[in-house]
Amino acid sequence: MVPRTTTSEAPMTAPLHTLDATTLARALAARELKAETLAQALTERALALGPRLHAWAHLDAAAARRRARALDQAAAGGSASGALHGLPLGIKDNIDTAGLPTAYGSAVYAGHVPQADAAVVALARAAGAWVMGKTACTEFANMTPCATRNPHVPAHTPGGSSSGSAAAVAAGLVPLALGTQTAGSVIRPAAFCGTVGYKPSPRRLPRAGAKPNSDTLDEIGVLARSVADAALLSGVLGAWGAGPAPRLGGDAATPRLGVTLTSRAQALSAPMVAMVEDAAARLSAAGATMQLAVWPEGFDSLFDAQRTVQVFETAMALAAERQYRRRQLSAGLRALLDEGAALPAAAYAAALSTAQATGLRIEELFGQAEVLLTPAAPGAAPRSLRQTGDPAFNRPWQLLGCPCLTLPGGLDAQGLPLGLQLVARPGQDARLFEVAAWVEERLEARTITHAACGD
Amino acid sequence: MVPRTTTSEAPMTAPLHTLDATTLARALAARELKAETLAQALTERALALGPRLHAWAHLDAAAARRRARALDQAAAGGSASGALHGLPLGIKDNIDTAGLPTAYGSAVYAGHVPQADAAVVALARAAGAWVMGKTACTEFANMTPCATRNPHVPAHTPGGSSSGSAAAVAAGLVPLALGTQTAGSVIRPAAFCGTVGYKPSPRRLPRAGAKPNSDTLDEIGVLARSVADAALLSGVLGAWGAGPAPRLGGDAATPRLGVTLTSRAQALSAPMVAMVEDAAARLSAAGATMQLAVWPEGFDSLFDAQRTVQVFETAMALAAERQYRRRQLSAGLRALLDEGAALPAAAYAAALSTAQATGLRIEELFGQAEVLLTPAAPGAAPRSLRQTGDPAFNRPWQLLGCPCLTLPGGLDAQGLPLGLQLVARPGQDARLFEVAAWVEERLEARTITHAACGD
Repeated sequence: MVPRTTTSEAPMTAPLHTLDATTLARALAARELKAETLAQALTERALALGPRLHAWAHLDAAAARRRARALDQAAAGGSASGALHGLPLGIKDNIDTAGLPTAYGSAVYAGHVPQADAAVVALARAAGAWVMGKTACTEFANMTPCATRNPHVPAHTPGGSSSGSAAAVAAGLVPLALGTQTAGSVIRPAAFCGTVGYKPSPRRLPRAGAKPNSDTLDEIGVLARSVADAALLSGVLGAWGAGPAPRLGGDAATPRLGVTLTSRAQALSAPMVAMVEDAAARLSAAGATMQLAVWPEGFDSLFDAQRTVQVFETAMALAAERQYRRRQLSAGLRALLDEGAALPAAAYAAALSTAQATGLRIEELFGQAEVLLTPAAPGAAPRSLRQTGDPAFNRPWQLLGCPCLTLPGGLDAQGLPLGLQLVARPGQDARLFEVAAWVEERLEARTITHAACGD
Repeated sequence: MVPRTTTSEAPMTAPLHTLDATTLARALAARELKAETLAQALTERALALGPRLHAWAHLDAAAARRRARALDQAAAGGSASGALHGLPLGIKDNIDTAGLPTAYGSAVYAGHVPQADAAVVALARAAGAWVMGKTACTEFANMTPCATRNPHVPAHTPGGSSSGSAAAVAAGLVPLALGTQTAGSVIRPAAFCGTVGYKPSPRRLPRAGAKPNSDTLDEIGVLARSVADAALLSGVLGAWGAGPAPRLGGDAATPRLGVTLTSRAQALSAPMVAMVEDAAARLSAAGATMQLAVWPEGFDSLFDAQRTVQVFETAMALAAERQYRRRQLSAGLRALLDEGAALPAAAYAAALSTAQATGLRIEELFGQAEVLLTPAAPGAAPRSLRQTGDPAFNRPWQLLGCPCLTLPGGLDAQGLPLGLQLVARPGQDARLFEVAAWVEERLEARTITHAACGD
């Protein structure tokens, strides 16, 4: 069995790259660890894994070290430090970072350096975080893969479009990373790489400064090694606004859970079905209320409606690139943009109506459950570097505006992670985290930090 | 009385800057007019009015002329030309233009030159339009004014935040301009300057490449001299997608109208009330079905709820500027961002719930009416250059997601325009244009092109 990291380890005896953000934050706040030391450790890890993993789109180790050192110096000088003091972040390459190359995963923007940070980057830095580097993403965060490999079995996709963010967190290149999701671009790579991934309710994390694809669907997301780590970063970015943070651990109420394989269960792999069923059984045995959530009549239309909204809006949002830089786009993206541009507005309007009408009936799906357990993807990561896998099991939740969080659900026979997705009603982000922490503890669903690719 | 331009004039006998876009487009398509000639005429107009009006934030006359000439040459070479062939545009300074300075109305971004066009700019250019220049806007399209003056009475505000776009279209600096609206930033300046202004249903015009303020509320808008002109540009930008364009003129069905002064009628000036009542009476006499739309119980909460959503989200979207560039922000914007950052998430969530719950009851307001007539602003432009006026009469429609179009409703005793706002149900943008054209024709509600400031 692969070793697992727990927060009960003494922080300084384990290699720094194996520690989770919560542990690191504690050591950094107590001045037992310098940010610069962490920068050095993560640079060494990147040098060791870089040629195999391709998780970083941009990494300037000396500049990263300077950013870390500046925080150490400010702290030594007595400056107030925030909740993320000294923590390094990986930032997906479709999210703007002032002074750091941001190519949106496309040759069109090679060498592009934004003048300003995206809002989420600014909020994280204001709380004391520093940027380690930019993580690789698919072309404009659509379906054409980048070079990143799955840290567990390198011939398999890491998923996309937040490929580098998921792989970097899984392989110990960085403890926390930002991603974005329009269909399944946070949850799917997190699941394929065996990390925690969180996609918020609509607009909970500000999108300003992320390259738009679908204005209705795009969300900022977080990739992390534990629910507590994801909560640490998500809270700073606004996931519960100025409201109370979720209570993770002991005194949170025992959750009321539902389980659904959606109306597309026939597309699931046998190990995925077994993992979800086993998780439900164990959580029920641990005391959770468990019900079968029946997929209501009409909800199957969400799968296609989400795709229609995404394709139509992406063609509009990438109008400049479609118009002026057509030859620099992949054939796949060109075809997608052309498809979107040719869609009748009536089809788009009908898809939005489907979303609205179905959303009004969401109680039929959730019933008594606070949170639904459902597959994060059809199965483990496919054996291919030419595709990033199928977001079908993310589409309905994205269109409904449900917050989603995936937990590592163990490994299949090939050593590839399976993702257990938790889904709450729109707006219930804080409770989703409480339930996810409860589930994580019962299932021991920890990120596997010693990835096969690395060690 | 101020002279009015009509499309029945022979295009070449009137000064070019007085012609509307539809007339210009016809002459450009027939090769009776060169884009370069138009660039020259608009440059002369800018030189004559510039020092008084301050509508342009950036105008490089030689570069604009080169862009126009390139279109003439492409057309002479037989290249296919689009629906906007040869038409010049003013682009609000918070909308990205590749290679053209875009400062978002703030010293923070002085000299900033985006690498890519916003989606709306790309779509317009793909259809043959060219950019004349960037129009001045308030600081980050919020409430702190830019230097622009009202073309009718220069001591009065032009409104904001799309100040320069409205003033430029009203004063004949450019026939068409793009704006943005979060509360009333298109409709209010259009009304104050006596032009047509259109704010679409949510997401009808793609927002990619416009600087975000409030992710729920921000929309791209169009400022023009007639309903037909606004329709020409809006259609290219996606207002009816690939669906049928509205039928403007003769054979459109006689509209069913309602009239409302909202629940805030006590804030309206007497001339504004008289203008709306007179318009309703004349349209009723012209054959429209006319009803009084009673403001339903509970809808008054929309005014405050819109502001809560805006302030909360703007503080998040401008997190980088609030964090790093605080000293370069106006005191007013700093206070607004601090207010937003201190709002409890519960207040924000409650405001969004108000929007949703009220939106579900929208039939109670519209009843049998297709389109509501309502004031575009409390009255004419206030006598001040330190404020841009009150968006109260825009807030509820923005939060409800209603498409809005303002028509020039004549001048008050001081020679200042009054705006008649037409509002449709969300998604009914094409029908809104049909009704607006019908109303425009009955009321002879044309933009006043010879503004006092200019001639």
